[in-house]
Amino acid sequence: MKLSQYYIPTLREAPRDAENVSAQLMMRSGMVRKVASGLYSFLPLGMRVLKNVEEIIREEMNGIGALEVWLPHIQPKELWEETGRWGVYGKELLRIKDRKNSEFCFAPTAEEVITDLVRKDVKSYRQLPITLYQFGAKFRDEIRPRFGVMRAREFYMKDAYSFHADETDASNYYEKAFEAYGKIFKKCGLKFWPVQAESGAIGGSFSHEFMVLAETGEDEIVSCSNGCGYAANRERAAVEYGREVKSEDLCLRCKEKGKESPLRFSRGIEVGHTFKLGAKYSQAMQATYLDDAGKSHPFVMGCYGIGVSRVVAAAIEQSYDANGIIWPREIAPFQVILVPINFEEPKTKEWSLEIERELTQRGVSVLLDDRSERAGVKFKDADLIGAPIRVTIGEKGIQNGTVEVKERAGETVIHVRKEEILTHLIERI
Amino acid sequence: MKLSQYYIPTLREAPRDAENVSAQLMMRSGMVRKVASGLYSFLPLGMRVLKNVEEIIREEMNGIGALEVWLPHIQPKELWEETGRWGVYGKELLRIKDRKNSEFCFAPTAEEVITDLVRKDVKSYRQLPITLYQFGAKFRDEIRPRFGVMRAREFYMKDAYSFHADETDASNYYEKAFEAYGKIFKKCGLKFWPVQAESGAIGGSFSHEFMVLAETGEDEIVSCSNGCGYAANRERAAVEYGREVKSEDLCLRCKEKGKESPLRFSRGIEVGHTFKLGAKYSQAMQATYLDDAGKSHPFVMGCYGIGVSRVVAAAIEQSYDANGIIWPREIAPFQVILVPINFEEPKTKEWSLEIERELTQRGVSVLLDDRSERAGVKFKDADLIGAPIRVTIGEKGIQNGTVEVKERAGETVIHVRKEEILTHLIERI
Repeated sequence: MKLSQYYIPTLREAPRDAENVSAQLMMRSGMVRKVASGLYSFLPLGMRVLKNVEEIIREEMNGIGALEVWLPHIQPKELWEETGRWGVYGKELLRIKDRKNSEFCFAPTAEEVITDLVRKDVKSYRQLPITLYQFGAKFRDEIRPRFGVMRAREFYMKDAYSFHADETDASNYYEKAFEAYGKIFKKCGLKFWPVQAESGAIGGSFSHEFMVLAETGEDEIVSCSNGCGYAANRERAAVEYGREVKSEDLCLRCKEKGKESPLRFSRGIEVGHTFKLGAKYSQAMQATYLDDAGKSHPFVMGCYGIGVSRVVAAAIEQSYDANGIIWPREIAPFQVILVPINFEEPKTKEWSLEIERELTQRGVSVLLDDRSERAGVKFKDADLIGAPIRVTIGEKGIQNGTVEVKERAGETVIHVRKEEILTHLIERI
Repeated sequence: MKLSQYYIPTLREAPRDAENVSAQLMMRSGMVRKVASGLYSFLPLGMRVLKNVEEIIREEMNGIGALEVWLPHIQPKELWEETGRWGVYGKELLRIKDRKNSEFCFAPTAEEVITDLVRKDVKSYRQLPITLYQFGAKFRDEIRPRFGVMRAREFYMKDAYSFHADETDASNYYEKAFEAYGKIFKKCGLKFWPVQAESGAIGGSFSHEFMVLAETGEDEIVSCSNGCGYAANRERAAVEYGREVKSEDLCLRCKEKGKESPLRFSRGIEVGHTFKLGAKYSQAMQATYLDDAGKSHPFVMGCYGIGVSRVVAAAIEQSYDANGIIWPREIAPFQVILVPINFEEPKTKEWSLEIERELTQRGVSVLLDDRSERAGVKFKDADLIGAPIRVTIGEKGIQNGTVEVKERAGETVIHVRKEEILTHLIERI
């Protein structure tokens, strides 16, 4: 991809209302733009990262037998009344009236719609288990949207829902989903920590949050000696769930061992949440199946969310420096940025285009900075955008038959012979 | 994919409110379910077709240099007031108040948001042209939603917007987009016809609709002797654009030749629409760039939509029979359905799994009906689901070393030796 034909409107300074590092860097690197409070557009560069994360999630969800669906964003009040959540959800639920004055909401989550779907078609234990998931926009009308896309009102989410005949099957699947989540965040190149957590507005008996560790995290993680932990953030819970919370609600015990004495503190950003829902929704909505003896039971359910747009921001909070983003290779918008010092110099152009073509053929995503900007400007933008590897092509190097390779995360510049550049880069990607 | 682990809740009869063939067949084959009036969920089978169409569109859009973005579905009133469309759009626009009583709409289209995005970052002719596109949900609060996903209120759409320095560049790009649209619908395996059309609520000077030809189409296409045509449907226009329409508005002349005498009539379903917007939005929103002399001009714009979920329905309207859907290969949810007569018979199971594995390895999408249903039930479901090729594996054939191959579109059954089945199928796909 040639930068001159691409669209990366970088900024020298972040807007004043960008409160945290990821919001600032996503604005400055031209990944996102704010449309209104808590509403963001993803520009092409941000979209590439979002899509990389989405693809990693899709692969792992398919791997545990989950099937992709697409549910409407606009959901009828009647379904939300069946579970009582129309009344309970509070102002975070965006309520809408259509032209006929019928009431709807913009989905903040989809337990009602998915349970309705399954209860209408799944009647027998033979049809179980089943897991359905989707990617799509969710809306939560936060009273104080902030931190860019990290706590936006409209955000991009993967939500999955599983239906089982009994608690054992549901628990086994929960373990599978839990493992898949680990793989997902690992594949995204993130340091993370699953912690036991409160269930909040989603409810159910048991839940884990997946926290990306970052100094700037909103949540305090208290780790116990056995290495599991819990999340505690009174303010967020109060805001999100619209109710008074007591510290007991938040400082959930680390169930596995029962040890309550915190050993060390860390901060985290919630990027995923898995819930054992039990029969909370199926009972309320009379969603039942018949067992092999013809007896009726409510489905036992689980639900599994990942804030896809939040993962993007969290990855930045975990990996940046004073010059910009340092992308994990796995989700980087481009794996390599090629910086010709003077693209119009014939030999430089020839080398640049050749390296771009050959890398692209091998499936490496490459951004070629073919602009007629000064080298300093190009280096600044390259650092800001954060591609893991920068290859600089200059006349001096060309005379020696080499190009310069620098990893974004380090300081070392290596001179690599042109004929070895492919092998060199592919080993590193 | 094994059918026992998949989710295809087929129905013997379509619900009474499924008014046309595609709505009936999409319900019966378990592709979609209705959530409320004009609101549908895509189940896994429908989702596969939707994703196939999406991927074809994405490839062609990228091919003409369009860059993918993601815009918020919830858009602020202020932007829609700048173009006057907040007042003009009528009841089809789903209007929403947030918790602070600020006004928004659920995007039925995104000219305002995209123009706002570009005017803030694109200041110079050097940054032009630029084309941005997205996939996402759109909402149009139709007074009379019907025909299933074909005229749903919430639907899945690809919308693209291009920005140019002048009319010439905009026209050249319009031609490119027009060609790309042709490729897209051809790749989807559809018979279609681009017709000159009214511009309606989107506005601008010039537009084409891409009509999939089908007996059940909503729009009447009048073709002129030179092979181009125009769309005419007074009722739809009146409903969609919330205004009185005169027949002159609808019966647009076939511009190229100026011939107005219709030679023959056909019916079509609009699946795509390309617009030359000119400076309609950029002028209203003061979206300008500086030319090389430092003079300010409004962007010249184009916009290009495809109703992705509508393409799925239109493909069915174009290709079905009394037994179900006949998918074009290019967008079929599965290219091959394997029907073992008795999956539990050891040799049958062995052959079925072997053929499934080998086809999958070659990138062919296969659905293996491993259920313990009668052959008649399996054949009925296979016909309903509409995979282009059915391979039947039975004990008799196995004794002769053969399996049965039948194309969904035809009647002929061929006996193919097992060792030749791969080559045979791959030639046909």
